[in-house]
Amino acid sequence: MSKPLILISNDDGITATGIRVLVEEMCTLGEVIVVAPDSPQSGMGHAITIGNTLRLVKTSIFDDLGVDSYKCSGTPADCVKLAKHHVLKERNPDLVVSGINHGSNLAVSVLYSGTMSAAIEGAIEGYPAIGFSLCDFSHKADFSHTREQVRKIASEVLTKGLAKGVALNVNIPPKQNEPIKGIKVCRQANAHWEEEFDHRKDPYGRPYFWLAGNFVNNDKGEDTGVWATDHNYVSIVPCQYDLTAHHAITQINNEWDI
Amino acid sequence: MSKPLILISNDDGITATGIRVLVEEMCTLGEVIVVAPDSPQSGMGHAITIGNTLRLVKTSIFDDLGVDSYKCSGTPADCVKLAKHHVLKERNPDLVVSGINHGSNLAVSVLYSGTMSAAIEGAIEGYPAIGFSLCDFSHKADFSHTREQVRKIASEVLTKGLAKGVALNVNIPPKQNEPIKGIKVCRQANAHWEEEFDHRKDPYGRPYFWLAGNFVNNDKGEDTGVWATDHNYVSIVPCQYDLTAHHAITQINNEWDI
Repeated sequence: MSKPLILISNDDGITATGIRVLVEEMCTLGEVIVVAPDSPQSGMGHAITIGNTLRLVKTSIFDDLGVDSYKCSGTPADCVKLAKHHVLKERNPDLVVSGINHGSNLAVSVLYSGTMSAAIEGAIEGYPAIGFSLCDFSHKADFSHTREQVRKIASEVLTKGLAKGVALNVNIPPKQNEPIKGIKVCRQANAHWEEEFDHRKDPYGRPYFWLAGNFVNNDKGEDTGVWATDHNYVSIVPCQYDLTAHHAITQINNEWDI
Repeated sequence: MSKPLILISNDDGITATGIRVLVEEMCTLGEVIVVAPDSPQSGMGHAITIGNTLRLVKTSIFDDLGVDSYKCSGTPADCVKLAKHHVLKERNPDLVVSGINHGSNLAVSVLYSGTMSAAIEGAIEGYPAIGFSLCDFSHKADFSHTREQVRKIASEVLTKGLAKGVALNVNIPPKQNEPIKGIKVCRQANAHWEEEFDHRKDPYGRPYFWLAGNFVNNDKGEDTGVWATDHNYVSIVPCQYDLTAHHAITQINNEWDI
């Protein structure tokens, strides 16, 4: 039996720590190909490059692992599209994985996340897909405990498959003194960012802003990704790209005068 | 009774035809404030600017209509965030509208669309929100028939409200000889882009790519936005930002060994 083919991307860029951990672990499960952004793309959401050109250049970054890799000038979603059409060509990956993101992608952050957009793009293309994130934004974030988790979850997806059109949003709690308690399958929390903008002046006296903010969880549920990672569980939120709010269809058809 | 406050953004940029049409029509319904990108942001999805600074500059573009307007260096989602925190401040808009996009935003395009990300960002902030798109990518697209539709739909939302966390994705068919047949409330079609990448060489002999492709609809349903606009109806797809695929939670909890 041939080894499964695993396509890897991320949003922190091809030289980030998280993607190296992910490549090393996926090499234990199958044949790996990397197509990842040549520079950080955090917060790019599901952006694609339509008004500009794209570059795709072969690198030697993962040669030590025997892994072919390409850096791309575009967004995470661009990487998956270009991988399909110009790297894999006739071959279909058995799994698309993205990450490991340096920082959490919980609740509504799934929309802003380049990591998850690579995974969701994989799901749109019809492949089982997973985005991995480590809930630790600190400069010295320790990825060591993520290895076992990403291997276990990727292995389950390769064995059991995923429903069509589903991408998993996996968030791993920060390294702690006690081991991770387990894995929980969760729903997206009703939590959001309360933005603050830092208002500054440039050296020429002109104003500019930096986006900042705090993550606020108003969701009392114990079945959410936020609750799970706060309690030292790995959270898996299965995500879909059909955004239809079916309950609102009924409301509009009944109440509106159209 | 005070007039409703309407915040307007878009992704084609503050000087685009579509936003002027939208501003003119919204002025008949309430007090309007514009915060829109200073350059085209098509395909930006739900990107936000976190690794760079943001500029926000007052313009005179809509002074002829008595409308305050600001151009922003960021994405559509940035515009809505900055509008809330640095333009509207203590005031809450009664409605956030985005567009009118020059081109359709049907099916999975909702994920790539900057127009819809401004609307969805409005919904995240807790405001009723609508993204408007004209299904005509041609250079000379005629927006005249969109006026009545955007006024009618915005007016219904102002009167009847929307369920919390819902943003409407409104697509208006291109101008045709016969009038629009009506408005249909739809679900998101299972249609997608089949990408092709134009592979070219730059003047220095180095390869580059342009993303291109064709929109393919595999969805046989007559309740989709694609079906409606193909049959000269305005389509309204209510969208939510909770991406949880609840059916997959059951599958994983039953089949996986975790």
